Amino acid sequence: MKKRSHRRSEKAGLPPGTLMHVGEASAAPVLMRLLDYDAERVEERQVEGIGEVVPPRQGGVLWLDVLGVHAPLLLEKIGQAFALHPLLMEDVLNTEQRPKLEDYEGYLFVVLKRLGFDRREGRVSESQVSIVLGAGFVLSFQESGGPLFEPVRQRIRGTRGRLRKLGPDFLLHALIDCVVDEYFGVLEQVGEEIERLEEQILDRPSPVAMRTLHRLKRELIALRRSVWPLREVIGGLDRSDSTLLSPGVELYLRDVYDHTIHVIDTVESYRDTLSGLLDVYLSSLSNRMNEIMKLLTIISTIFIPLTFIAGVYGMNFRHMPELEWRWGYFAVLGGMLAVALALVVFFRRRRWL
Amino acid sequence: MKKRSHRRSEKAGLPPGTLMHVGEASAAPVLMRLLDYDAERVEERQVEGIGEVVPPRQGGVLWLDVLGVHAPLLLEKIGQAFALHPLLMEDVLNTEQRPKLEDYEGYLFVVLKRLGFDRREGRVSESQVSIVLGAGFVLSFQESGGPLFEPVRQRIRGTRGRLRKLGPDFLLHALIDCVVDEYFGVLEQVGEEIERLEEQILDRPSPVAMRTLHRLKRELIALRRSVWPLREVIGGLDRSDSTLLSPGVELYLRDVYDHTIHVIDTVESYRDTLSGLLDVYLSSLSNRMNEIMKLLTIISTIFIPLTFIAGVYGMNFRHMPELEWRWGYFAVLGGMLAVALALVVFFRRRRWL
Amino acid sequence: MKKRSHRRSEKAGLPPGTLMHVGEASAAPVLMRLLDYDAERVEERQVEGIGEVVPPRQGGVLWLDVLGVHAPLLLEKIGQAFALHPLLMEDVLNTEQRPKLEDYEGYLFVVLKRLGFDRREGRVSESQVSIVLGAGFVLSFQESGGPLFEPVRQRIRGTRGRLRKLGPDFLLHALIDCVVDEYFGVLEQVGEEIERLEEQILDRPSPVAMRTLHRLKRELIALRRSVWPLREVIGGLDRSDSTLLSPGVELYLRDVYDHTIHVIDTVESYRDTLSGLLDVYLSSLSNRMNEIMKLLTIISTIFIPLTFIAGVYGMNFRHMPELEWRWGYFAVLGGMLAVALALVVFFRRRRWL
Amino acid sequence: MKKRSHRRSEKAGLPPGTLMHVGEASAAPVLMRLLDYDAERVEERQVEGIGEVVPPRQGGVLWLDVLGVHAPLLLEKIGQAFALHPLLMEDVLNTEQRPKLEDYEGYLFVVLKRLGFDRREGRVSESQVSIVLGAGFVLSFQESGGPLFEPVRQRIRGTRGRLRKLGPDFLLHALIDCVVDEYFGVLEQVGEEIERLEEQILDRPSPVAMRTLHRLKRELIALRRSVWPLREVIGGLDRSDSTLLSPGVELYLRDVYDHTIHVIDTVESYRDTLSGLLDVYLSSLSNRMNEIMKLLTIISTIFIPLTFIAGVYGMNFRHMPELEWRWGYFAVLGGMLAVALALVVFFRRRRWL
Amino acid sequence: MKKRSHRRSEKAGLPPGTLMHVGEASAAPVLMRLLDYDAERVEERQVEGIGEVVPPRQGGVLWLDVLGVHAPLLLEKIGQAFALHPLLMEDVLNTEQRPKLEDYEGYLFVVLKRLGFDRREGRVSESQVSIVLGAGFVLSFQESGGPLFEPVRQRIRGTRGRLRKLGPDFLLHALIDCVVDEYFGVLEQVGEEIERLEEQILDRPSPVAMRTLHRLKRELIALRRSVWPLREVIGGLDRSDSTLLSPGVELYLRDVYDHTIHVIDTVESYRDTLSGLLDVYLSSLSNRMNEIMKLLTIISTIFIPLTFIAGVYGMNFRHMPELEWRWGYFAVLGGMLAVALALVVFFRRRRWL
Repeated sequence: MKKRSHRRSEKAGLPPGTLMHVGEASAAPVLMRLLDYDAERVEERQVEGIGEVVPPRQGGVLWLDVLGVHAPLLLEKIGQAFALHPLLMEDVLNTEQRPKLEDYEGYLFVVLKRLGFDRREGRVSESQVSIVLGAGFVLSFQESGGPLFEPVRQRIRGTRGRLRKLGPDFLLHALIDCVVDEYFGVLEQVGEEIERLEEQILDRPSPVAMRTLHRLKRELIALRRSVWPLREVIGGLDRSDSTLLSPGVELYLRDVYDHTIHVIDTVESYRDTLSGLLDVYLSSLSNRMNEIMKLLTIISTIFIPLTFIAGVYGMNFRHMPELEWRWGYFAVLGGMLAVALALVVFFRRRRWL
Repeated sequence: MKKRSHRRSEKAGLPPGTLMHVGEASAAPVLMRLLDYDAERVEERQVEGIGEVVPPRQGGVLWLDVLGVHAPLLLEKIGQAFALHPLLMEDVLNTEQRPKLEDYEGYLFVVLKRLGFDRREGRVSESQVSIVLGAGFVLSFQESGGPLFEPVRQRIRGTRGRLRKLGPDFLLHALIDCVVDEYFGVLEQVGEEIERLEEQILDRPSPVAMRTLHRLKRELIALRRSVWPLREVIGGLDRSDSTLLSPGVELYLRDVYDHTIHVIDTVESYRDTLSGLLDVYLSSLSNRMNEIMKLLTIISTIFIPLTFIAGVYGMNFRHMPELEWRWGYFAVLGGMLAVALALVVFFRRRRWL
Repeated sequence: MKKRSHRRSEKAGLPPGTLMHVGEASAAPVLMRLLDYDAERVEERQVEGIGEVVPPRQGGVLWLDVLGVHAPLLLEKIGQAFALHPLLMEDVLNTEQRPKLEDYEGYLFVVLKRLGFDRREGRVSESQVSIVLGAGFVLSFQESGGPLFEPVRQRIRGTRGRLRKLGPDFLLHALIDCVVDEYFGVLEQVGEEIERLEEQILDRPSPVAMRTLHRLKRELIALRRSVWPLREVIGGLDRSDSTLLSPGVELYLRDVYDHTIHVIDTVESYRDTLSGLLDVYLSSLSNRMNEIMKLLTIISTIFIPLTFIAGVYGMNFRHMPELEWRWGYFAVLGGMLAVALALVVFFRRRRWL
Repeated sequence: MKKRSHRRSEKAGLPPGTLMHVGEASAAPVLMRLLDYDAERVEERQVEGIGEVVPPRQGGVLWLDVLGVHAPLLLEKIGQAFALHPLLMEDVLNTEQRPKLEDYEGYLFVVLKRLGFDRREGRVSESQVSIVLGAGFVLSFQESGGPLFEPVRQRIRGTRGRLRKLGPDFLLHALIDCVVDEYFGVLEQVGEEIERLEEQILDRPSPVAMRTLHRLKRELIALRRSVWPLREVIGGLDRSDSTLLSPGVELYLRDVYDHTIHVIDTVESYRDTLSGLLDVYLSSLSNRMNEIMKLLTIISTIFIPLTFIAGVYGMNFRHMPELEWRWGYFAVLGGMLAVALALVVFFRRRRWL
Repeated sequence: MKKRSHRRSEKAGLPPGTLMHVGEASAAPVLMRLLDYDAERVEERQVEGIGEVVPPRQGGVLWLDVLGVHAPLLLEKIGQAFALHPLLMEDVLNTEQRPKLEDYEGYLFVVLKRLGFDRREGRVSESQVSIVLGAGFVLSFQESGGPLFEPVRQRIRGTRGRLRKLGPDFLLHALIDCVVDEYFGVLEQVGEEIERLEEQILDRPSPVAMRTLHRLKRELIALRRSVWPLREVIGGLDRSDSTLLSPGVELYLRDVYDHTIHVIDTVESYRDTLSGLLDVYLSSLSNRMNEIMKLLTIISTIFIPLTFIAGVYGMNFRHMPELEWRWGYFAVLGGMLAVALALVVFFRRRRWL
């Protein structure tokens, strides 16, 4: 788990609605990108302060994309400018929320988790994306910056972009779709790791494989916590009777919903596969033990009686008739060989050899 | 898992409704078979382009069966000709959908998975079948060609075919029935593999059996993902209040629904059986270990003391009275025999021998 | 699993409603028993063809009990005589149905599973019983003949039989009650087998016990598949608003429902018990291994050092002062004894002895 | 499981409503205690036959407490006197019912399980308590006599007893409360057994502990079957709209409901604890095995090479230069010591010693 | 588990509503703090008896915070002063309640569990907090005193405190929020313990780690029992239609609800992690066993044959030609070396060395 500069428990005792950033501290400045568009035109610019943000125009869509949530003061101002509830702004700052959908009067609030996969460490990383859909505007807040929404911006800028002719609810859909689409890439990478692990375990089980298995299991536990609530969120949007959602957007939301189910299904089947791999690993440990013991037993069973015979004829009794025999030595050697062969036949019969 | 030429994650960032084939690339041409029938007559032909498709006539049924979904342009044209939503056509091309039912205004959209069993590799293969039911027409899209719907065509061609007198909803039922019927064959083959595995594990457990078990488990995980959603799909059709479904078709849909439940039941009980087999396998490994250790312990416990006695009389002390005795050697041999017999009796008592 | 002459997959491709017997082939003739009764009189006879069946009289009950479902032609005639839906008749013939309740217009259709326990093979056998309740008549179809419904017939024949005064819905209840009552006997026998197994595993675990455990587990998986759907069937009858069921029968159906829940509870607790027995078995295997290893370790640890000492004094060095000592031999014997005693004390302290 | 004189399966085939005692046979006479009370007065007496029972008076409460259900004839008379349904009386006699609530017209019927804990055998025993609540009367039937309801009687007799001023529904609550209160005692005893077992397993795991664990697990399976349905029963009473229940009693029923949930929670956490103990037990078996094997390996690894060296110098070759050396013997002894020390250091480094 | 002075079972048989303290006895006096505030003013004082408590004024909020519930008489008086139901007061005293919400006419009753973590013993401790919300007043009862609600008091005292302008329902929310906030601290500490355990198990598995794992598992079972019902409680408040809750408080309750879900999620993923750690632990035990056995087998397999050879040439036969050879001794030593090397190569090939 990543170290956090502010831990959740430090918030205990503060009144609800207090804006305090819970999550990784960051020194990077908070970037804000404004897109103001309608069917005819697109205006796009980087804004510095909330003063530069114009109110949403009739028929147009205003999209303010905020990269970074570690500036409580700035976010408080944004909240006031758009008349957002303090509890909502608190959730934007506290990046340890579960994905959720909240229907405030006048706007919808969606919290999502963006996923990434750090191939070197084999870790799934998580960052929070909060989106507010209001009348004529969409606000998006990202915990960690990155070119997540660039494809959406390009679709808006493009001249034949259907998106420009549609309302802010379609923009909301496009943003959610962006977030969910990233999941498939993460799942494919996890899936590849699982396949590599499978080969390794079937081929040559080792404690290292067990550690990898344990790590992947923990990653899937974390993944599950991000993905399961998503279903409720998008299902909730689909069933919502909010006037902010036009009837046409429903089909598109259902499409994202299907993707979410697909993601959940995949996560669940990965879990099943991992638990199957654990069984394979444990059984192969048992098998190896059997192999080792078999070898020890074969060697011991063959040589212990022989050594005993040698020991007998190494005794120093004065009267041991065999010792005097002409062919005694060779007879004993022959006897030993016979015993050894008998035991080999015995093990062959039991299919140990 | 099969290699795919286009992976799901490559679609990320594209606007929804973009037609891009996700699935195995194919060089085979897309075949289209048209059946235009009513109670009196049947017309059947292979069509090349969408221009050859006549509009559905009043009272008749038009069935367009498309084999292959790797031609986006052609499919786009079909979509336009029948006024289908771009999201629907996207789902037809993206063959990694879960089975689902969608009620678009004016038509119903059903996605199913066709199953096959590759006996040589012991793998269940999957391909997508999408069906659109509209007023007077049925469109079916198969990912991979094969004589799946031939029995339906024969029932339509036949003179006493009841199907010809009925509407397109009965055709939809017939097609779904075809797909579900194939499942029983696949399940029977999986069931036979499980029975073979069971015999093998009860008879002679080996790491190979464990691998087979693991593979079958993975196959069942995949099977489950195809079969469980089917229940919702057909149950949804049964409960649907769409005007495209006549009241008479309900009983038939319920019949397919029963088959689906039967399939799910079977898959679940196979899973239970496999997890029982794992227990049997692991316990038999433990048993074998016990057998091996028992043998080693018996041999060691009998011979180690004897070897010790031989060692004692192999010592070179000047004053060892026993060595001088007339019958010392035979006395010791007798003593050894007595010890060995005592140990054999001891093991018999413990039922180790 | 029993071999079946017609496998389910052979039906694939046939139109629904096609009457083909799926199940074990039988050469025995199909028997039909007719009971025609009302409060005053009872008429009972064996009929040969459907022509002999009189239509149900006003106020009376007609009960046709068909033993054997392997004669498609005869059954088709019965279906036509009572105007039954072809899908219903198909389900009667296909004896691999799950228990289910279907509400056709004009009649109710109930499919049940009759259970038997083959004590010699320790197998639960299953056969299908289908019952149709119509206005004034009850049809029952049994896959395998047997004196299942004889007690009901006797209650009808008897002069004080309450059943004779009541309608066909009470007859339906009586028949279902008969089927469910048989379950208790089967469960008691399975329960006894489990108790025997428990004693065996606690007493003297062996691979044979593991096989028995596995077999019983499989039997319970099969049992579950017959019993769980029963709950829905009888619960569905209880909640049904069909006019064929009079209000008075409800209490009686609830009574059977309670029996069903009792059966399910028992099956589930048997499953729990079996999985507990598996734990006991595996842990006792580990215990035995510990016992075996302990013995080996004790013997080895005591004798290996002694044998080493004997070996030392068996060396042939010219200058070994101890060998010349008068009491050297006895001193070494004493030393060996001391070592052995010390090790025995050591093991005692560790409570290994 | 206790032997039963009449087994459930013996009832198979009898018409429903047939009164036959299923349960342990008893030679003790059936006792009947009658309490007839209202706010002003209490009349209490032992009755012999049903003839002595007076009809319930307006505004008063009549409570007939029947100890023993093994007298079908007597119970049939009671049923007739209070106009109870034969199915109800059948359930009273058949003491293998699950806890349940049934709403007959005119009276409510509650079946509960009374629990006891036999400390010597470590077994939870079960006996059935059936209660009928009618207009102005309460009938209670106990399978096995005991001073279960004595506290309730004392509260009625007492002059300040609030219970006397309230209707029969409050009496029903008091009786149920009595039964549920007993559960806490049983659970505490089971809990103590589990704690003892835990100490034993953590301290000194043995096959005996495993048997205790298995026994407790079975007891909890049985306990669960008695306790889970209780929730539905009391929840059902709480939600019931029967006119026999006055609004005031609801709060009290909710209170018992909370107790039931508490009991269920406890049973479930006991199950979790037991399954955790199984893990502890199994892992400690593995640990012990490791300890045993470690000892064997250390002893063997140290002495086997030494014995080999001794063996080498015990060979009888004519030309073995070392044997002639002056200090050969001591050099070899020193070498052996060096080898032994090196191995000890080796094991120390691996932290085996 | 902590010893309790009064056990739950001792209450059995007492009439419901009897006030008897079930929980740890305490000699500390019961403290009562009164806060009487409205938007303008705050009055705060310590009260000794219930006589000092003024009735709630119109528009103001009266908050009586009672620390300690071991004084039945005092609590009875409080109950009477605020006209609370005896069952409610019984629940306040019986500190073994599950978290619950009850809607009495005229007031709402909430039972919560306060959690603490005893770092030294690694134990989660639990104490009960009961809150009554009435018209104009809030009563809070804490089983064990502590500065739990101090932050709320400070927010009320503060001049800009929003809380002072709001009704008693917001005070209820603030108190619940306090309790839930404490959970995060407990969970973080448990989480740290789990991480330490994880490092330990991955690094150096030992029976001590297994005991820690078992203890943490038990703690999580207990934690779950406190946390799961919380969800229903707060969800119930959120959905409640009680007039005591103003519409504005809903958003705040939903916020606490989210926190609760977060807590439950964390507990569940801790459980998953622990069960994963058990697998790691068990597999590492098996691995160690393999390591140990490998060493034993290598040593034995190399030296046993060599010792046998030495034994052969230690035999005392008169006619053993090799013994007479000039280089016999060295030839045998060389042969032994060759055998040893061959075995080393053999083990290298099998990758055992």
